[in-house]
Amino acid sequence: MDNTRPTLEVVARRAGVSRQTVSNVLNSPHVVRAETLERVQAAIVELGYHLNGAARQLRTRRSQILGLRLQPVEDGINGAVLDRFLHALTERAQSRGYRIMLFTAADDRGEITSYRELLDSADLDAFVLTGTHHGDERTRWLTENAIPFVTFGRPWVTDDEPDEHSWVDVDGAAGTRAAVEHLVAQGHSRIGFIGWEAGSDVGDDRRAGWARAMQAAGLADDAGLERLSSAVNDGVRQGAQATERLLADESPTAVVCASDSLALGAVTVGRGQQSPLAVVGFDDTPVAAAIGLTSVAQPLSEAAARAFDLVMRQIGGGDGDAADSHILLAPHLVVRQSTHRPA
Amino acid sequence: MDNTRPTLEVVARRAGVSRQTVSNVLNSPHVVRAETLERVQAAIVELGYHLNGAARQLRTRRSQILGLRLQPVEDGINGAVLDRFLHALTERAQSRGYRIMLFTAADDRGEITSYRELLDSADLDAFVLTGTHHGDERTRWLTENAIPFVTFGRPWVTDDEPDEHSWVDVDGAAGTRAAVEHLVAQGHSRIGFIGWEAGSDVGDDRRAGWARAMQAAGLADDAGLERLSSAVNDGVRQGAQATERLLADESPTAVVCASDSLALGAVTVGRGQQSPLAVVGFDDTPVAAAIGLTSVAQPLSEAAARAFDLVMRQIGGGDGDAADSHILLAPHLVVRQSTHRPA
Repeated sequence: MDNTRPTLEVVARRAGVSRQTVSNVLNSPHVVRAETLERVQAAIVELGYHLNGAARQLRTRRSQILGLRLQPVEDGINGAVLDRFLHALTERAQSRGYRIMLFTAADDRGEITSYRELLDSADLDAFVLTGTHHGDERTRWLTENAIPFVTFGRPWVTDDEPDEHSWVDVDGAAGTRAAVEHLVAQGHSRIGFIGWEAGSDVGDDRRAGWARAMQAAGLADDAGLERLSSAVNDGVRQGAQATERLLADESPTAVVCASDSLALGAVTVGRGQQSPLAVVGFDDTPVAAAIGLTSVAQPLSEAAARAFDLVMRQIGGGDGDAADSHILLAPHLVVRQSTHRPA
Repeated sequence: MDNTRPTLEVVARRAGVSRQTVSNVLNSPHVVRAETLERVQAAIVELGYHLNGAARQLRTRRSQILGLRLQPVEDGINGAVLDRFLHALTERAQSRGYRIMLFTAADDRGEITSYRELLDSADLDAFVLTGTHHGDERTRWLTENAIPFVTFGRPWVTDDEPDEHSWVDVDGAAGTRAAVEHLVAQGHSRIGFIGWEAGSDVGDDRRAGWARAMQAAGLADDAGLERLSSAVNDGVRQGAQATERLLADESPTAVVCASDSLALGAVTVGRGQQSPLAVVGFDDTPVAAAIGLTSVAQPLSEAAARAFDLVMRQIGGGDGDAADSHILLAPHLVVRQSTHRPA
């Protein structure tokens, strides 16, 4: 497929108008003079901008369908989070007359190919993306092609990059910070962290929340934080092994984990100790509820509702303030038996 | 909405042809004489059979979209099964150029309302149903309206009811039977069963597999089966309580459970015993893998693939043998640490 479809910019040049005027033609045609409207619409047609961005927005009737890529099932425990987001999104959309269409893709590039196919064949109105990461090609493509979309997950941009698209995310660092504060209130001071290898945006954020709370409580300097934290791949076995190493080297009385999978491994090892280890997981999965694991819960229904509303605002043609379209929600700690006072 | 849309039968009467001829017009128009074709098509239009069953099948281009109702998220552990089925179905469909559109509904009647809306607004080709049960209104409505569909789950009809629609299911009784045989091979003879209250078709089937295997092994008569089995609501706490009662009254050395939630409760109680209780769960959820629980695994990818293929056969107009459209798949037992020889 052709990767060089004209963008709004090209349409604007062809019609000899500003980018804003093209945007007006698409979103508020009643404010555009008839002659200009006609010229811009002709440019769109000439440039073959059909069945995509601009032309789709010229339709009188929307498909009322949003697309979402279903992520592959993970063997672990954490995949349930996106399934719960999907359930909540489907319900919110349906209550507003919209439906969710699912697709799969092997990677980001495959996801972009699916966007094209879905726009052409099923005339989708917008996309909801999950699993955002630094340098995400998908959001660039959607932005360039003027397709409405929202991401569940921050763009994880650095300071000198633009951060213009709509997103909803949960403040993971606030979650691990709350976990540390809860453990400190119980009397713990040697609190370890078990997370993922550096470079995962979500994982780095969860570690940062633990680290800042430890420093704020005066419980560790940089070297101490380094010693008290462990970075592994996600998984129950990995969580167990990391816990064994931390216990042998640093004797923590509690650990905060970046996932319930890691936490389950920590609980298994911790049970065998003379003084039981307090453990906090992340994501409040069914496993956490089942085994009495204290865990950080994401407000997934609210995240889905806000994401849907952000997409509607774009489809409705409203501009809004860019700041309003970046929504960071607070998680909350669900306290269960796995966090107790130190022995 | 009008609940009395004409069925194939009515179209046949109006056109003065047989039901089979109407079916031929829809599925194999080339075998129908031009004059008959015209008469049947006219009858369809006159009867307002538009945007539904017959008329949809007269379209030259299909939407290539299948609808599926997303069940509400359960607090427990078992909901993951349908999410895994959904993932597999989405992948299979996509590999054949089809997409899945999701919707939600409060109950079966709401699901039927959604069928109408989706057929009218998004022109869906077929539906995939889950959670079938005795006297299912949904399958009756779809059959009467000649909408292609398949169910993941048997119709659970009694002998004197028709069982004509396509379905795929997993043989739950074979799963609990395999669990008993595995435990017997390990030397267990007092094997309890923890399941749901009678009346759940799926639950009754799982209990029947345990009961038949116990009888086949000469381990219990009817009264013994009654004493060794417990019926509760699904849940971890309920599983724990039922296990405590069974241990007090019947001292089983092993229990087979109708779900991983119940089994998790059994494991928790069983751990505290002098001679540890062997436990088998059902559905091989992530919780089972995480805690080393032996569990019955459903072949969800195969079930999704076969379900998709059965729907394609209907859309493609093939008739096939009715027997081929009822597919009962065998589950398999995933053996882990929770099943061990009796002490």
